[in-house]
Amino acid sequence: MHSIFLHRSVRKYLNKDIDEKILHKILLAGTRASTIGNMQLYSIIVTTDPKIKQELLPLHFSQAMVVEAPVVITICADTNRFSRYCEASGTKASYNNLLWFVNSATDALLAAQNMALEAEEQDLGICYLGTTIYNAKEICDVLHIPKGVIPVTTLVVGYPEVEPPLTDRLPLEAVIHRNTYEQYNATELRELWHEKESSELTAKLLEENGLESLAHVFTEKRYTKNDSEVFGQKYIDALREQGFQI
Amino acid sequence: MHSIFLHRSVRKYLNKDIDEKILHKILLAGTRASTIGNMQLYSIIVTTDPKIKQELLPLHFSQAMVVEAPVVITICADTNRFSRYCEASGTKASYNNLLWFVNSATDALLAAQNMALEAEEQDLGICYLGTTIYNAKEICDVLHIPKGVIPVTTLVVGYPEVEPPLTDRLPLEAVIHRNTYEQYNATELRELWHEKESSELTAKLLEENGLESLAHVFTEKRYTKNDSEVFGQKYIDALREQGFQI
Repeated sequence: MHSIFLHRSVRKYLNKDIDEKILHKILLAGTRASTIGNMQLYSIIVTTDPKIKQELLPLHFSQAMVVEAPVVITICADTNRFSRYCEASGTKASYNNLLWFVNSATDALLAAQNMALEAEEQDLGICYLGTTIYNAKEICDVLHIPKGVIPVTTLVVGYPEVEPPLTDRLPLEAVIHRNTYEQYNATELRELWHEKESSELTAKLLEENGLESLAHVFTEKRYTKNDSEVFGQKYIDALREQGFQI
Repeated sequence: MHSIFLHRSVRKYLNKDIDEKILHKILLAGTRASTIGNMQLYSIIVTTDPKIKQELLPLHFSQAMVVEAPVVITICADTNRFSRYCEASGTKASYNNLLWFVNSATDALLAAQNMALEAEEQDLGICYLGTTIYNAKEICDVLHIPKGVIPVTTLVVGYPEVEPPLTDRLPLEAVIHRNTYEQYNATELRELWHEKESSELTAKLLEENGLESLAHVFTEKRYTKNDSEVFGQKYIDALREQGFQI
């Protein structure tokens, strides 16, 4: 396995379909991930129909890769299938609260990462779409997603037009703790972000936005308080409409 | 990459440490996973101290692998580090609601699956501990986890004592939907579970428990309504105590 260390998010794709056998292998990889109690509490919706991709486009903030990539995979936490199987077997499951949203979302995300890595192993590129949870309810409508099921992420998959460079990460010690969690002081935090803060990319960002630090780009442009409140409430509403008792 | 298709959960480990270089590679693999806005909203707590593993043991329902495996990795959704970095940079982040719990949990789980796969690539075995969210608050206490951070899963990692067989899965068509979600009727559901229901393993389970179907084993033994309510409320309480506005 070499692709874990070569992963980059691909946002420009060639106009080239994915062979059905390759796609099959990617989907099968998803199902080999660990799953709570072997219940497989997820569903994988593989959208290739251009008309439906077009409907998804605005829900993913009109990122062109949604229609340009040949395959859009919406990965859902799914307690519906297992609950209905229980019903069909004459018993009743109680898997519709926050605990089971977290359990099923965990199943879904581990499966998603397996698919992402297997796609990359097959020389394909992928990009996760965080917009999925911003417009989860609208995505449910487009994809006819029933109660007990909610999208948690989306993968676009296709052949890369260009191979982007590896993305920088914080130094390993920023995210690793030995034995117990060690708190950071302000000096340490600034040191951990020093390399990012002093990159050319950041200098360009700050100039474009007229902002004083990378942190300000996040809090004032990318992920603002207002967006956090609006989309936070939207996802709670979506969860409730999908039948999760949150 | 071959290990995706060979994954099995390992519950018995040899008394053999993991070389620091190998562990480093596993942790590094975690950081190569996609992360929302490249914010890396997770923390990875690597516990090898036998005393602390012993404290974690009852919180994971006394599963012996917690103390037998050389390394226990608690993976946390972490909005604390990024928020404190913003603070140290003179701005305020608002990343403490359900949306940001889901965003940071997503980051954490993708990183976890990268670590699981890289561990397997290094001939190690792993097992996810779903018990993590049952006793999240107690785990926070043992591991000194601050506000803005909450465990979402745990990986035990070590050299397998035996290689268990591959676990069965539902047929691929059970979890894959083409273009949009296709609902299952009761006949289809019973067909999808037919192979599982008719396995020797299931026959043994039903006999041991005196129950009529595999579904009953789940609803009446493994994941009951009462447990769902108790542990559901516990995780909500833990999230709130950790500062998430849920």
